[in-house]
Amino acid sequence: MSNLAVIGVGMAQVKSSSGKSLTELFVQAAKDAVEDSGVSKLDAMYVGNMMSGFLQNQEHLGSLMASALGREGMPTYKVEAACASGGVAMNAGVKAALSGLDKIVLVGGVEKMSDNSTPKVTAGLMMAEDKLKVATTGVTFVGLNAMIAREYMLKYNVHHEEIAQFPVLCHGNALDNPKAQFHKKISVDDVLQSSLVADPLRLFDCSAMGDGAAALVLAPMDEAKKLTDSPVEVCASTVATDALSLYQRKELTVFEGSRRAAGEAFARAHLTPKDIDVVEIHDAFSVLGIMAIEDLGFADKGSGSELLREGQCSRDGKLPINTFGGLKARGHPVGASGVYQIAELTLQLSNRAEKCQVPNASVGLSQSVGGIGSTVAVHILRRP
Amino acid sequence: MSNLAVIGVGMAQVKSSSGKSLTELFVQAAKDAVEDSGVSKLDAMYVGNMMSGFLQNQEHLGSLMASALGREGMPTYKVEAACASGGVAMNAGVKAALSGLDKIVLVGGVEKMSDNSTPKVTAGLMMAEDKLKVATTGVTFVGLNAMIAREYMLKYNVHHEEIAQFPVLCHGNALDNPKAQFHKKISVDDVLQSSLVADPLRLFDCSAMGDGAAALVLAPMDEAKKLTDSPVEVCASTVATDALSLYQRKELTVFEGSRRAAGEAFARAHLTPKDIDVVEIHDAFSVLGIMAIEDLGFADKGSGSELLREGQCSRDGKLPINTFGGLKARGHPVGASGVYQIAELTLQLSNRAEKCQVPNASVGLSQSVGGIGSTVAVHILRRP
Repeated sequence: MSNLAVIGVGMAQVKSSSGKSLTELFVQAAKDAVEDSGVSKLDAMYVGNMMSGFLQNQEHLGSLMASALGREGMPTYKVEAACASGGVAMNAGVKAALSGLDKIVLVGGVEKMSDNSTPKVTAGLMMAEDKLKVATTGVTFVGLNAMIAREYMLKYNVHHEEIAQFPVLCHGNALDNPKAQFHKKISVDDVLQSSLVADPLRLFDCSAMGDGAAALVLAPMDEAKKLTDSPVEVCASTVATDALSLYQRKELTVFEGSRRAAGEAFARAHLTPKDIDVVEIHDAFSVLGIMAIEDLGFADKGSGSELLREGQCSRDGKLPINTFGGLKARGHPVGASGVYQIAELTLQLSNRAEKCQVPNASVGLSQSVGGIGSTVAVHILRRP
Repeated sequence: MSNLAVIGVGMAQVKSSSGKSLTELFVQAAKDAVEDSGVSKLDAMYVGNMMSGFLQNQEHLGSLMASALGREGMPTYKVEAACASGGVAMNAGVKAALSGLDKIVLVGGVEKMSDNSTPKVTAGLMMAEDKLKVATTGVTFVGLNAMIAREYMLKYNVHHEEIAQFPVLCHGNALDNPKAQFHKKISVDDVLQSSLVADPLRLFDCSAMGDGAAALVLAPMDEAKKLTDSPVEVCASTVATDALSLYQRKELTVFEGSRRAAGEAFARAHLTPKDIDVVEIHDAFSVLGIMAIEDLGFADKGSGSELLREGQCSRDGKLPINTFGGLKARGHPVGASGVYQIAELTLQLSNRAEKCQVPNASVGLSQSVGGIGSTVAVHILRRP
């Protein structure tokens, strides 16, 4: 898959309340990505989004956004895979670019969560789960993740203060990212003393609601090299699923979808976890950040938090993670998060990450999760 | 694009009230398609659907359906493009199969419209339009199509009784299709005397609400020939968009999206309208059926209804249209309709259409429309 590159990115600052419409959010990110890439014509556009129908009573985002961009004509697609919508849209865009039918492909993601009440958005997020068999029980998404956190802590004898290192890392990194939702340094104590949301998860264990949009432009590598001095190669793009619901799983503390998607991605890229210089992880909840370190192959089960304790996951460590703040602090505008991750990796690997730059990063991996690990998209990018 | 084939299809009967869940509807169609194809493993799955978030508070259909099929693991995608969701999902599936990343791809579509009130479904359908600029005016989708119908009749001096031939044709054909929603012969007088919905459109000018699901299996032609004696070649798969809303268009009675998508499809297939033996058209409203005949290149503007008057569009005519009943009479379960069309063409081109069979049909075309012609998917299939 070495003939495809990301050649431009655009990101809106994630905001708790942007005051912008879905269209305004998306169009600005898309225009920025197109301008950054230097292309004039787009051949296709993929829009990742989860909840626009439920929250804004707006579907048909493909045509809506193409039209708002003044680029009607091209084929467009809304791709939905719960919180992995952005990562999965990227994968669909990669397939289009590899099909021979589309050359220059824009992949974007957008979500607007601010113009609805918290109960409504909470209900919206539960659309990732089986409505008839799980959502109707009244359990929320944070509730499901709390069950995982409790099981993880018991099974591996890991304490909350160890897991809480993850949001602390993210908030630290986000201080240098002007596009981040939160610019607020926090400590492990802050996490442990924040209000309880669903035991054992507390407020600072959880990503917040936000409005955001991100976009990037894909091009064949030969075209890319004409357009930019710093194309970033897409080495692998994979999506894997698991049984949808926790009650269907044998094991709560491993996401088989992550293992499958990462395993396939490493195989396709002819790389191993040791080759990765920077990682963007789907830390919707702190425990998911720790589990991802393990499921992606960077640590044994139960020992993910040790890497944080040893300082390995800082930007100057061996395995920098969530270098722009991750879902927790850059923000988690659901359908856009997977695209933010890849845009951020692109900046890292083209030496354009400014204050967030990881020195000498040449290979990066992103992981985007939908539902309770039910869908996982993994991308591996490389400085050519 | 001659190395790809449809090798199996499955269709639920469209029903005004199926009593089945989204999952039950989809799973049965998908299982039927897989059984029909003879494949054991699927490499990817694309699910077309428009309104599950709004109507059932259910998203993440990719993982949900893979899990319900006992086929978790593979990559899955929900694709949304309003009423063209099924046709656009097919196009995304074709791109996946051509990308070299997936070999055996299931494409399905599903919509359940029965467990909500008519006003709620009407609001759901308006999600295809710009919520902030058009939907908030209170106009409905049938209202927008009524404006087109009025303009069409005035501009080309075509009378309602001529347009009304389209639903009459569809209802006639559906009598022989056991999967059709309606088995009721109607006359032009029945259309003209049915209740007024939005002037000039009357009840029998409009497709109805229904529950349904359809699915098909794609495979590379060399694999296909091992699995079945009657693979049907996918000669072309295109999607084109137009400005989203009518107020942005210069011309109301031409769908540029149809022209673009059809033009590209004919070019890729190295075929012309004269080569087409059977057509499945997106006749959500009678006037759209007539306009499609013209925009797809089968008649000059304003003269589409003449083909019907001359009997050319019957199954024994020169250009058989909507041979299983079309959206009007087979039914229009929104996100599934585009997949039904391609499944029906597959049956025609593999000589398995039974009482609906068009004698000696060897090339077929389908047109799936999202919004007011804002997104159009066109497929050309051929008996190899």
